[in-house]
Amino acid sequence: MTQTASAAPAWQVAQWFNTATPLTLDALRGKVVVLTAFQMLCPGCVAHSLPQAARVAALFPREQVQVIGLHTVFEHHEAMTATALRAFLHEYRIAFPVAIDQPGSDGPIPLTMRAYGMRGTPTLILIDGEGRLRQHLFGRIEDLELGARIAGLVAEAAALPMPAAPTPPRSATSDEAACSDDQCAIDMDDDKR
Amino acid sequence: MTQTASAAPAWQVAQWFNTATPLTLDALRGKVVVLTAFQMLCPGCVAHSLPQAARVAALFPREQVQVIGLHTVFEHHEAMTATALRAFLHEYRIAFPVAIDQPGSDGPIPLTMRAYGMRGTPTLILIDGEGRLRQHLFGRIEDLELGARIAGLVAEAAALPMPAAPTPPRSATSDEAACSDDQCAIDMDDDKR
Amino acid sequence: MTQTASAAPAWQVAQWFNTATPLTLDALRGKVVVLTAFQMLCPGCVAHSLPQAARVAALFPREQVQVIGLHTVFEHHEAMTATALRAFLHEYRIAFPVAIDQPGSDGPIPLTMRAYGMRGTPTLILIDGEGRLRQHLFGRIEDLELGARIAGLVAEAAALPMPAAPTPPRSATSDEAACSDDQCAIDMDDDKR
Amino acid sequence: MTQTASAAPAWQVAQWFNTATPLTLDALRGKVVVLTAFQMLCPGCVAHSLPQAARVAALFPREQVQVIGLHTVFEHHEAMTATALRAFLHEYRIAFPVAIDQPGSDGPIPLTMRAYGMRGTPTLILIDGEGRLRQHLFGRIEDLELGARIAGLVAEAAALPMPAAPTPPRSATSDEAACSDDQCAIDMDDDKR
Repeated sequence: MTQTASAAPAWQVAQWFNTATPLTLDALRGKVVVLTAFQMLCPGCVAHSLPQAARVAALFPREQVQVIGLHTVFEHHEAMTATALRAFLHEYRIAFPVAIDQPGSDGPIPLTMRAYGMRGTPTLILIDGEGRLRQHLFGRIEDLELGARIAGLVAEAAALPMPAAPTPPRSATSDEAACSDDQCAIDMDDDKR
Repeated sequence: MTQTASAAPAWQVAQWFNTATPLTLDALRGKVVVLTAFQMLCPGCVAHSLPQAARVAALFPREQVQVIGLHTVFEHHEAMTATALRAFLHEYRIAFPVAIDQPGSDGPIPLTMRAYGMRGTPTLILIDGEGRLRQHLFGRIEDLELGARIAGLVAEAAALPMPAAPTPPRSATSDEAACSDDQCAIDMDDDKR
Repeated sequence: MTQTASAAPAWQVAQWFNTATPLTLDALRGKVVVLTAFQMLCPGCVAHSLPQAARVAALFPREQVQVIGLHTVFEHHEAMTATALRAFLHEYRIAFPVAIDQPGSDGPIPLTMRAYGMRGTPTLILIDGEGRLRQHLFGRIEDLELGARIAGLVAEAAALPMPAAPTPPRSATSDEAACSDDQCAIDMDDDKR
Repeated sequence: MTQTASAAPAWQVAQWFNTATPLTLDALRGKVVVLTAFQMLCPGCVAHSLPQAARVAALFPREQVQVIGLHTVFEHHEAMTATALRAFLHEYRIAFPVAIDQPGSDGPIPLTMRAYGMRGTPTLILIDGEGRLRQHLFGRIEDLELGARIAGLVAEAAALPMPAAPTPPRSATSDEAACSDDQCAIDMDDDKR
């Protein structure tokens, strides 16, 4: 499988969140990249794939694994704007880097989604330490299998002769969210504005 | 408790979804009303209170219990617009009537939310067959207790001398959603537009 | 439905746990009885119906609702002995009264199970305040519906002219279990015995 | 960590289930061993660690990973007999090999449990392809982390010069269980015996 895996297409990004500088496949050489393509109004993404991506980000060291969210809006474009996504990331306390996939000029499918041939959301993409596309999955994967697949790629990357890229500082997690997992409380100062 | 319960404040609504005609407390006399105040970007609402409300709507006959969603936006107003809510209701397949709480003119808290003195979302409101506010809960309630509380109010309403209002036709559930619980698939015709 | 419900058959019990005196249908008149028939080696009972019964016992006042477990062993009799059941109740912290169904003399099905015509485990039996069998369900019922059904019977019982039987003292919950929900720890003195 | 890991103690077994021949650490050289120590009356084992072990057995090839259950009875010995365990494995459809830890002669703690210094159940033990103890965990581990740890050891084992032991035939899974996950049904012939 390793020999035949092809290079992962570059990401075409309109805007980044949760990172000081844009991320690129080239700069991430030496790390395993776990990319989760999602839409903020996709129920399966909200219930399963984004919480799973957060668990991956919490478990694996940033020096070995980079988790990235890719907002691939292919429907309800007027509802899933950059402004709405910013609020979504805040309320759901998503702290890993998230990119907005570049909208296409001739159809509803954004450019990175099209380049990867994704069929919908959620889609999970695993990229190895040499920048090759190693897994492309539309739908759900269980934690046990995902943990095993990532660890397998990490073990491969550890055996590579090239040094891993220097670790960027971990982006600060916003702590201002008014919502816990269970509820959103009114900031009592709000009503006085 | 029954004697001292006060009349539930009227709802001030900017827009209704999933109902041909606006719903009012007066017209719902004789029925138990289960009102769930939510925000589409409130994680606890999406994970718990809205699915629970859908279970209530599926279990109890419409002649006895009316479930209503109230979109009480008190934060991120620019993200949780009527357009965004429409897409949200579609993707999450919410078929019971939903009202947008009327925005306030002098602060972020909308009018019905303020009239009920709600502290945030999710908030559950139970109204008995005589239009009285019988339960106001901020946060989560377990299904077993909620089922018992609603059934208790239904039993009370059944003992009322007044006839129940005629049942409105059940609003059709949209079946066009491209998303299942687990994933959103691209409509293959989309890319050709 | 009320008029045609028949009297619930009497229970034939080999042994009681978690109660100072045997319980009988007659003595429970005025209360709603929630009887859950189970086997300690029945996965659905352990995962669903027994935890649900414990939630019912925690939610409804003992003056209104009596939860009872009935150990209806119809298979693996050599494994599900009274000794094994005692240990099971201890480790699973089941505090409501539990009866061992009287074994039959001419087959594997115990006598109460046979009298009720139960098809297996878990089976849920609801008995109203007048001692009538009102619900008989083999398999699973959701909490929302169960809460509603019990509350409906409680409302009926509250309207009965007869007084509820005096409440027996709540049986003490054992607190000595060495197991939490997640793990069983060795009592460090054990090894020295 | 690898250099300092010590050899895993040998297992002292009173009886095996679900395997034609006893398993030994020596014969398993070249494979990763996932050993889950449990008691059939330990709630956390039944709810979490045994289902997790079954998921591991289903995911990883038998040529790479051997899952083993170890019944380490340190309390309620009279309830958790070999006969009871046999019925338990049948009803819970546990198909991977299970060993009964050899009872001790001078206390309640069985011999393998004592040799490993286990503190209770569930305990997870990971042994690498060279027979070394690499992980000892009392309590719960999440699937994502467990999948990663096992895959890491599998990657190590794949790099070993020694050949993996020949794969024993996969033990047949019993299909006669009268219980599904949700319920146990009476075999209708039972009553006629």
